[in-house]
Amino acid sequence: METLTDKNTTMSRKQKAPRESFVSMTELVLPNDTNTLNNLMGGRLMHWMDVVSAIAGQKHCNSIVVTASVDNISFRTPIHLGDVVTLKARVTRAFNSSVEIRIDVDAENIPEGKKVASHSAYFTFVAVDKNGQPVEVPEVIPETDEERAMYDGALRRRQVRLILSGRMKPADATELKSLFDIKQ
Amino acid sequence: METLTDKNTTMSRKQKAPRESFVSMTELVLPNDTNTLNNLMGGRLMHWMDVVSAIAGQKHCNSIVVTASVDNISFRTPIHLGDVVTLKARVTRAFNSSVEIRIDVDAENIPEGKKVASHSAYFTFVAVDKNGQPVEVPEVIPETDEERAMYDGALRRRQVRLILSGRMKPADATELKSLFDIKQ
Amino acid sequence: METLTDKNTTMSRKQKAPRESFVSMTELVLPNDTNTLNNLMGGRLMHWMDVVSAIAGQKHCNSIVVTASVDNISFRTPIHLGDVVTLKARVTRAFNSSVEIRIDVDAENIPEGKKVASHSAYFTFVAVDKNGQPVEVPEVIPETDEERAMYDGALRRRQVRLILSGRMKPADATELKSLFDIKQ
Amino acid sequence: METLTDKNTTMSRKQKAPRESFVSMTELVLPNDTNTLNNLMGGRLMHWMDVVSAIAGQKHCNSIVVTASVDNISFRTPIHLGDVVTLKARVTRAFNSSVEIRIDVDAENIPEGKKVASHSAYFTFVAVDKNGQPVEVPEVIPETDEERAMYDGALRRRQVRLILSGRMKPADATELKSLFDIKQ
Amino acid sequence: METLTDKNTTMSRKQKAPRESFVSMTELVLPNDTNTLNNLMGGRLMHWMDVVSAIAGQKHCNSIVVTASVDNISFRTPIHLGDVVTLKARVTRAFNSSVEIRIDVDAENIPEGKKVASHSAYFTFVAVDKNGQPVEVPEVIPETDEERAMYDGALRRRQVRLILSGRMKPADATELKSLFDIKQ
Amino acid sequence: METLTDKNTTMSRKQKAPRESFVSMTELVLPNDTNTLNNLMGGRLMHWMDVVSAIAGQKHCNSIVVTASVDNISFRTPIHLGDVVTLKARVTRAFNSSVEIRIDVDAENIPEGKKVASHSAYFTFVAVDKNGQPVEVPEVIPETDEERAMYDGALRRRQVRLILSGRMKPADATELKSLFDIKQ
Repeated sequence: METLTDKNTTMSRKQKAPRESFVSMTELVLPNDTNTLNNLMGGRLMHWMDVVSAIAGQKHCNSIVVTASVDNISFRTPIHLGDVVTLKARVTRAFNSSVEIRIDVDAENIPEGKKVASHSAYFTFVAVDKNGQPVEVPEVIPETDEERAMYDGALRRRQVRLILSGRMKPADATELKSLFDIKQ
Repeated sequence: METLTDKNTTMSRKQKAPRESFVSMTELVLPNDTNTLNNLMGGRLMHWMDVVSAIAGQKHCNSIVVTASVDNISFRTPIHLGDVVTLKARVTRAFNSSVEIRIDVDAENIPEGKKVASHSAYFTFVAVDKNGQPVEVPEVIPETDEERAMYDGALRRRQVRLILSGRMKPADATELKSLFDIKQ
Repeated sequence: METLTDKNTTMSRKQKAPRESFVSMTELVLPNDTNTLNNLMGGRLMHWMDVVSAIAGQKHCNSIVVTASVDNISFRTPIHLGDVVTLKARVTRAFNSSVEIRIDVDAENIPEGKKVASHSAYFTFVAVDKNGQPVEVPEVIPETDEERAMYDGALRRRQVRLILSGRMKPADATELKSLFDIKQ
Repeated sequence: METLTDKNTTMSRKQKAPRESFVSMTELVLPNDTNTLNNLMGGRLMHWMDVVSAIAGQKHCNSIVVTASVDNISFRTPIHLGDVVTLKARVTRAFNSSVEIRIDVDAENIPEGKKVASHSAYFTFVAVDKNGQPVEVPEVIPETDEERAMYDGALRRRQVRLILSGRMKPADATELKSLFDIKQ
Repeated sequence: METLTDKNTTMSRKQKAPRESFVSMTELVLPNDTNTLNNLMGGRLMHWMDVVSAIAGQKHCNSIVVTASVDNISFRTPIHLGDVVTLKARVTRAFNSSVEIRIDVDAENIPEGKKVASHSAYFTFVAVDKNGQPVEVPEVIPETDEERAMYDGALRRRQVRLILSGRMKPADATELKSLFDIKQ
Repeated sequence: METLTDKNTTMSRKQKAPRESFVSMTELVLPNDTNTLNNLMGGRLMHWMDVVSAIAGQKHCNSIVVTASVDNISFRTPIHLGDVVTLKARVTRAFNSSVEIRIDVDAENIPEGKKVASHSAYFTFVAVDKNGQPVEVPEVIPETDEERAMYDGALRRRQVRLILSGRMKPADATELKSLFDIKQ
């Protein structure tokens, strides 16, 4: 959708901090969101993740955005009927016409006062105009250490995405190789 | 959830072919499934993927299954209001109490007689009993060349999953290293 | 909507086999699909029947289709929360601008490994263009003995439909009279 | 579900008039109820028919009721997005543990002040206790000429149902034969 | 939206009785309508109130109507899963381009034969044309004593609304002051 | 539900600040949320208000809460399909077993970068145990000037509620009379 030698450095490009597009969404797990064990279905949670991160993407890009990819998500602990699920979405890094967004999910059983689960995920969105054509998006300027770490990791995650979708050869993934702790 | 040195070879374990749990699901894209561009929302598609693969998982395991993880999905082409979406789920490989499932998605505009999109994804499910405790699942016996290729690739995808969720060190991912074309 | 002396034999009309438009749909019975006995509501099942047969109708006709009629359906055994419902739709016979579709429904409790219910129904659809005007549809060419039996029965079911909706006098229903085992 | 020689005449059985369980339901056709022509989907209308008649059945029987069968329905004219749909359900006749209900549907485009469609249908429900076992239901005492006509027609419709579901031989359908205007 | 010195007396204005736009709506409380106590959520009930009164408003005004305000509602007794909720909407009084509607809600547990709750509420709607511009609405001509009482009370409720939304000073609310039993 | 001479001052009662239970919820207006003018239906917005404030109520009370009342809401400007709606709920004051919550709603058209609407509302909830019996709730300790103003206004709004639901005589509403600027 965009070339890999992504020139993010053009001076004229608009710049925005992650806090400017931060979105928080809270959902109550209702009967129809659950399977026969009364646990939240994974598919419903992914639907909520998509909505909250699409809104953050819209806010950062000031345009319509469409889901381009979802990174590996692992669901370790079940969320139950009646739990309150809080989803927080923040942009981590922008590429030419796309933006990576991190979603943090917390689930709580409030009457019992305990946190029941905690997930995170990365979604990527492409900003488009009314005709569905990609448009340039503002750069992300990280402000905190946590934001800078997520900004730096974004290149690595992007290479994983490109390899896993067959658009990059693993041998070209220089960022990623360091992850495998390999002397080259 | 299970050890990596997964002994799938116990003689007494039940064996099933992928065709025994194959599931096909067809959905019509209705207004509420779409965003303001009249395109199917990614979150809705993931919800359908979760349902169809959970049913295939139930059929293979003959037990309730819960979503354990979702692999990287990339959405390249938009699906529109009124399109017919066909989702096909088939098990690729079983581990002790979990099963990997591949979902193939096709979208068609039937009145115009053209295929509009084609996606695939891998979901992993854990089989559980009524109390949510993991139970052993039948082995998968691939029967066709395509099924054997998906069976073999499952170990590699599993290592990606374990690394990305922080449960395996990249340096230990022997299966995966070959993908990076590295002499060790 | 079309005359009864339906000339299906025009040489130039397109022909398609039932297998070319066969559709299978799988649904999981969720809490909101059920009544207070935790049984699938009849209305929800009919809604699914309508969707799956509309898709088969679209595939056969390569056009939008609208529901024209539903034949008598009898629901003998309850389907429960958590059951997996498989709906299979296949065209049986085409008339000028309409097509009859048979839907077979199976419900299974998969963890208990038993089939819980089995229904069938006939829906009729009219193929229309963008302005809602009826258009000619391809003929159905049955290929198996079962398909030929459904093709032959379609005339009889059509007469029942026309009588029950007051558009044919019972005395004119020559096909149907044989059903009543009456010497004429 | 009950024998055909249905003795409705036991003196002790409770009696109720149709007006005591009459139910009216009004729905607004919203985007998700429609197909790509912006017409109400047949399946959604049947779902509403099922809900309104189940409520009338509950009111007559003072028990939970489950859908037993649906008679032939024909949908002649399309209902559009934004139309107001009024469904009226009234019991026509009771058998041992079941009750037949007639649903009349009117659709109106209110801003344009015109009635756009008008349908009717017959649903049958079985009254059950908390364990799903059939229970005896009150008799229906028709009060108006229209109600008496629907009461009388109920036997004929019941024979059609039993024949079409394979539970009665056409030759035994004495009520129905008169419909075919046949000297015996 | 309209001036307070509302001249309802123009001779040419259309007049309609409340019975001409009366709407009754019946809903069955399904699992997804309830909270974790299996009680109907207040928000769902308000959604139904909005739909039923919007339809009554449409019928009176013969135009599209949009919700302008909701008066204080108090929910005293819980409504449960499986209860049947009947909502009745009738116009009480029209202003220039708006109409006040009273909704009466009854909830019944039908198998147990008891009424479980009873609420009422007032909604106000503005009649608009296709471009969302307010249009004049017919006058309401009350016919019964109850309707006349609701018609008279409408002025008082309107002053409460205007004060509570900050569009009228309490000191100007002459109608309302009488309610506080104050000599002026 | 509780006496009016509400002794909030018992020393042993738990105390919490509004920020401890603050909840923010973001929703995207989808086709099924809208009427035929493509505007968000008032009933859907009230449903969202109920959910977000119920969650804030749960958080403050650490128990299940049920909607007790809704204050007058006025909807001045329409919210459109595709707009992003942000709802913020914060507790204003607690009574014995109930809590008042203020909801602020903002709607934005993000691609056009403009705020389209802004509403606020007050909901009251009763905290209950598993059997639906009212339980005592923590006191609210306002921390900012805005919170103190909402805390002070709560008594006045409570009197409006009690009068409008017929549980208090206007002449007894000492707090409220000041609003009418009346020398007593």
